Amino acid sequence: MERRKVGILGATGMVGQRFIQLLSNHPWFEIAWLAASDRSAGKTYGDACRWKLDTPLPKHIAAMTMQPNVPEGTVGELPKIIFAALDADIARELEPKFAAVGCAVISNSSAFRMTPDVPLVVPEVNADHLALIEAQASRRENGGKGGYIVTNPNCSAIGLVMALKPLEERFGIESLFVSTMQAVSGAGYPGVPSLDIMGNVVPFIKNEEEKMQEEVGKLLGRLDGRKIEMLDAKVSAHCNRVPVEDGHTECVSIKLRKKATREEILAAWNEFLPLQGQHLPTAPSQPVEYDDGVDRPQPRLDKMRGNGMAATVGRLRECSLLDWKFVVLSHNTIRGAAGAAVLNAEVLALLGKLDKLDVAVTPAVAVMA
Amino acid sequence: MERRKVGILGATGMVGQRFIQLLSNHPWFEIAWLAASDRSAGKTYGDACRWKLDTPLPKHIAAMTMQPNVPEGTVGELPKIIFAALDADIARELEPKFAAVGCAVISNSSAFRMTPDVPLVVPEVNADHLALIEAQASRRENGGKGGYIVTNPNCSAIGLVMALKPLEERFGIESLFVSTMQAVSGAGYPGVPSLDIMGNVVPFIKNEEEKMQEEVGKLLGRLDGRKIEMLDAKVSAHCNRVPVEDGHTECVSIKLRKKATREEILAAWNEFLPLQGQHLPTAPSQPVEYDDGVDRPQPRLDKMRGNGMAATVGRLRECSLLDWKFVVLSHNTIRGAAGAAVLNAEVLALLGKLDKLDVAVTPAVAVMA
Amino acid sequence: MERRKVGILGATGMVGQRFIQLLSNHPWFEIAWLAASDRSAGKTYGDACRWKLDTPLPKHIAAMTMQPNVPEGTVGELPKIIFAALDADIARELEPKFAAVGCAVISNSSAFRMTPDVPLVVPEVNADHLALIEAQASRRENGGKGGYIVTNPNCSAIGLVMALKPLEERFGIESLFVSTMQAVSGAGYPGVPSLDIMGNVVPFIKNEEEKMQEEVGKLLGRLDGRKIEMLDAKVSAHCNRVPVEDGHTECVSIKLRKKATREEILAAWNEFLPLQGQHLPTAPSQPVEYDDGVDRPQPRLDKMRGNGMAATVGRLRECSLLDWKFVVLSHNTIRGAAGAAVLNAEVLALLGKLDKLDVAVTPAVAVMA
Amino acid sequence: MERRKVGILGATGMVGQRFIQLLSNHPWFEIAWLAASDRSAGKTYGDACRWKLDTPLPKHIAAMTMQPNVPEGTVGELPKIIFAALDADIARELEPKFAAVGCAVISNSSAFRMTPDVPLVVPEVNADHLALIEAQASRRENGGKGGYIVTNPNCSAIGLVMALKPLEERFGIESLFVSTMQAVSGAGYPGVPSLDIMGNVVPFIKNEEEKMQEEVGKLLGRLDGRKIEMLDAKVSAHCNRVPVEDGHTECVSIKLRKKATREEILAAWNEFLPLQGQHLPTAPSQPVEYDDGVDRPQPRLDKMRGNGMAATVGRLRECSLLDWKFVVLSHNTIRGAAGAAVLNAEVLALLGKLDKLDVAVTPAVAVMA
Repeated sequence: MERRKVGILGATGMVGQRFIQLLSNHPWFEIAWLAASDRSAGKTYGDACRWKLDTPLPKHIAAMTMQPNVPEGTVGELPKIIFAALDADIARELEPKFAAVGCAVISNSSAFRMTPDVPLVVPEVNADHLALIEAQASRRENGGKGGYIVTNPNCSAIGLVMALKPLEERFGIESLFVSTMQAVSGAGYPGVPSLDIMGNVVPFIKNEEEKMQEEVGKLLGRLDGRKIEMLDAKVSAHCNRVPVEDGHTECVSIKLRKKATREEILAAWNEFLPLQGQHLPTAPSQPVEYDDGVDRPQPRLDKMRGNGMAATVGRLRECSLLDWKFVVLSHNTIRGAAGAAVLNAEVLALLGKLDKLDVAVTPAVAVMA
Repeated sequence: MERRKVGILGATGMVGQRFIQLLSNHPWFEIAWLAASDRSAGKTYGDACRWKLDTPLPKHIAAMTMQPNVPEGTVGELPKIIFAALDADIARELEPKFAAVGCAVISNSSAFRMTPDVPLVVPEVNADHLALIEAQASRRENGGKGGYIVTNPNCSAIGLVMALKPLEERFGIESLFVSTMQAVSGAGYPGVPSLDIMGNVVPFIKNEEEKMQEEVGKLLGRLDGRKIEMLDAKVSAHCNRVPVEDGHTECVSIKLRKKATREEILAAWNEFLPLQGQHLPTAPSQPVEYDDGVDRPQPRLDKMRGNGMAATVGRLRECSLLDWKFVVLSHNTIRGAAGAAVLNAEVLALLGKLDKLDVAVTPAVAVMA
Repeated sequence: MERRKVGILGATGMVGQRFIQLLSNHPWFEIAWLAASDRSAGKTYGDACRWKLDTPLPKHIAAMTMQPNVPEGTVGELPKIIFAALDADIARELEPKFAAVGCAVISNSSAFRMTPDVPLVVPEVNADHLALIEAQASRRENGGKGGYIVTNPNCSAIGLVMALKPLEERFGIESLFVSTMQAVSGAGYPGVPSLDIMGNVVPFIKNEEEKMQEEVGKLLGRLDGRKIEMLDAKVSAHCNRVPVEDGHTECVSIKLRKKATREEILAAWNEFLPLQGQHLPTAPSQPVEYDDGVDRPQPRLDKMRGNGMAATVGRLRECSLLDWKFVVLSHNTIRGAAGAAVLNAEVLALLGKLDKLDVAVTPAVAVMA
Repeated sequence: MERRKVGILGATGMVGQRFIQLLSNHPWFEIAWLAASDRSAGKTYGDACRWKLDTPLPKHIAAMTMQPNVPEGTVGELPKIIFAALDADIARELEPKFAAVGCAVISNSSAFRMTPDVPLVVPEVNADHLALIEAQASRRENGGKGGYIVTNPNCSAIGLVMALKPLEERFGIESLFVSTMQAVSGAGYPGVPSLDIMGNVVPFIKNEEEKMQEEVGKLLGRLDGRKIEMLDAKVSAHCNRVPVEDGHTECVSIKLRKKATREEILAAWNEFLPLQGQHLPTAPSQPVEYDDGVDRPQPRLDKMRGNGMAATVGRLRECSLLDWKFVVLSHNTIRGAAGAAVLNAEVLALLGKLDKLDVAVTPAVAVMA
């Protein structure tokens, strides 16, 4: 089977590097186009990027020439599938341009997550929301063949909703409290200064509590025709940065609509296998893993479960205020960012939403280098 | 004014070292006796202890000879005031022996905190509970001149109750969540292995959630004759260890019995000056300091406020589930342990409870070394 | 091809866990026997061990029953090949027992490294020294079929000698300085207390400087019949512990016997491929990788090169005192410990030294569990 | 005694903050003027600065208005004494302007350290070099009353030369090797990204090895009329960044011109009291403290000795290549930066070099705020 060509927008940042890592040996996708800021265009990726991962930068990727970060002017063909790892402000400007020329934009940015006709999706949780793309103007106005934008949630929301979804399905969620301890890689590079975080805790991440609260509502919401009816539950988030490299740990207290026993909750997590049998390359075999160790999950030990795509849950115990307490952990730049987007793309492929894209843009004459 | 002689039981551990640091230049107290485990007796303190603080070990303390860790056999006179920094199991055995011979035992251990006739006290919060000592058998049976045990709370509970007390007084507390990020020094030395905590979070501290929940109830409870009526509020705690050396950070959501505005809450904290005018050497001038920085309090920057004795509060904002959210931080081995005990002793001195102690124990003949 | 059965002695410690990790999918070896301390015998490995690696403990290993840590009493058959990850004192007692009954003991301990008839080997550096085993009594007295002990060097010496060997071969080494910054995993578990190392440097590791200095001499020494003639070079080591989880970084200044240009040195490293073509599963394809980044090598980015088996060198520059300066880094528990031993075993297999072992020991009746 | 008014140029950076901390209660100096970048002028210091120290920012300093960072335009009077904590490029432009109008510029920058007529001084080491200021044009051309620039060395060189000076005096230094482990605060704020240094070592600091090597030569050089004759010794430095907040640790091997015993070396350090009896407020009573613990000095435990102004030495032992090995540690932003400059100013005051300065600059009309 021939692999589909894909591009990466924002390829030099922390999430961009994870895209490279996850896609450079992907069985369905092939990296064919890389772009970052204006000043990187024309350089090789190896020169434009300070590679910060502990697996080597593949040589053929290092040698690729960076393209302009707009649809026009690409040397060669613009891929139909664009993974985007841009800051929100830049995403707001650039992503629609790619959708407008016909690309499927698989975005990790917060820019359009709460836009009504943009699906905010974690495939195990709400793959049905992907139908929203048909409501996007770029798609409607092109006879259903136009481009679109699909988003995944904030790194702190993904692990949480994976743990919540099986509980919502079986028991209903009335309210919850979540207190996070988030890794520094979530702030990108250079990101958090070492003097701010070594041996320290910073009990604030800009806009993070707001994002978690509203994204949970949309992710667990119900698709009603062409719009999402938000989950009717109260969510209160406290977000903290801690001196951890990768892996967000979250303490959760939850009140369910229908009482559940410990065994019923464990069963809900254990039997939560919504993508089973689909053979998606990036999907973990057990999306929510419960670890019964007294002191688990921990970022250092558990973040790489399911190749970094599983959420690990532990310490289920009664809450003296709501019903139950537990801890959930997930890898923030794999499951919580690049891996989430790649899995979104795999589901879109499965649904045939990557097949009929009709990208129309005049490439540049190859004079750049 | 002559300084009162005091002893330190468990003098070589992390909290014991803080006792040395806080008491070696204390205007009211003078370190006259040191003890730790059996095997340290007879050694000098300098040889028995691996000093881990960043201020120098005073030379005259280093030269002191360690005594047996029981009342009997002391070379010279046993002080009437014993600060105790022992593990709970050992405290349960040793502290009553010192009380029985007539000493005021100012304990940092958890062993007797929840014992009905033992006061669990933070002077700013519930100094009136100290009256409980008169209910202790060793005291009653000696015409009110006998020894007694006084305790301070767990390091994770102290900062919290300091922030809560002004709110309880003015508005009443109905329920609260607290999620902690606790420093490694709270586990003593050697304590937490570096491989467990470097770049990691451990979402579990043995018995800590239980202690926080019950101690808050007693500390904010009401003295009713010779017993404490526990606070009638639901408290749900999530306790975590993070790679921070000193300073416990806690995220709190709270529901009040009477609605309060932001200004009323800030005023409650700001005007909380219960020890004002008493001139206690260790009491911070402002026990609860509110910092209006967006990202405060932080352990690295705020733990030493009030010489490590203040609780710093920040990020007061509305909670979508309960009423208000905030963050509180305090130094876990000063305010949360040794400093708390020293302040308890200062209040006992002020109340005259250190004056009439009648210690009867036969000292050893000085043949030990 | 059938895999050879192997045992792991000291299987629950940090290096023991790395043995499990490296051997549980090994194409030539199969884990058939596990032992640790007396008190673990009879438990399952899962119960006896606190697994600290970030890859999952394989389920079939977790279910294995721990055996006694002596040759006698094994339930079933004692494997002929024993990987040993014991503290020196225990190794001194136990390893000879296994050699005496006929086992090939592939040891990571320091106990016998400097014993004249025990080979101290890094296969890329001095595989020829393995001939020393024929001088061991247990081997001689059994017609060349008896057991033996083979050792690998200290974790701080391995990366260094890999970088030195190509220089010694081509130019000769007259003297060198090395200053190390060593990871905490080198001290095992629980090992270094977090209060000692978080945000700190400890400029001392017991016996480490002595070990580095003498082991380098033996490793780069010349096999002369049945003994090693030590390298005639002055080596001065400064050893430090730093808050790094895995990966030892070493700053080296070196004086060569024959002057060499930068290009000649780079060529020596680049062309150092002594195991090329042997198809050893654990051997890295490029044992010494030179990285020309200005700030490399770094533990976080480079420790996993060659699956943790390569030494990365960088910053080659002139020294104002000796001739050249450079930095070398290697993974201390893979290349520097368990991986080194596994590679030793692979070379022994290649040389036929694992074939004719004649292990004689009466197994226990299976009543243990 | 009235305190002399001083200004701080670069007052908002890490070293600038240390200047505030050290000078805000100084018995001889009074902070009267603060400046940083152009965009901070007109703001209060509290608004212009992100205070990163763990002692509170004094309220009267927080309220001060930032001035332009040039001599002209100051609201009120420009102080005669300017402490400067600027990046080298900016220092190169701004410091001479202040010297030109008559100020004594006490600089921490590297810009003019190696300029022949600028003294590079550590008072305990080479206070006599301060005579060089009379050779500066701004001073010569104003009848010995003009302004001048005085510098202190790089943070990595200061502790080293303090340990070396007593050895140079008594035995002579022929050559030395030094390998550093430097704290992140040495790179300023935001400085080192947390993703680069958490759990990592970076074996490179730009220009640091060159600075150490040449500054040691000048500091231990001999004043010969109006120029410094550099020390004739070979110095080879390896510089590394480690995850430590404050405190540079350095491993040294040294060859002396005259053989010395261990006792002679310890005596040289112990008896090194060049400023004794001068009553300088910032001078440590024992500039070089030897600690005989096996694992000392350590940044966490020893950096604050002598209020952060002492160098701690430990682990003196024989070197198998040169003569002796030892470890030296000093606080990089106190002894290694701001404290060094303050001590330079104190010595200048003692020498009368702050008395006759004749500063001529037209202040601005006070319309700024």
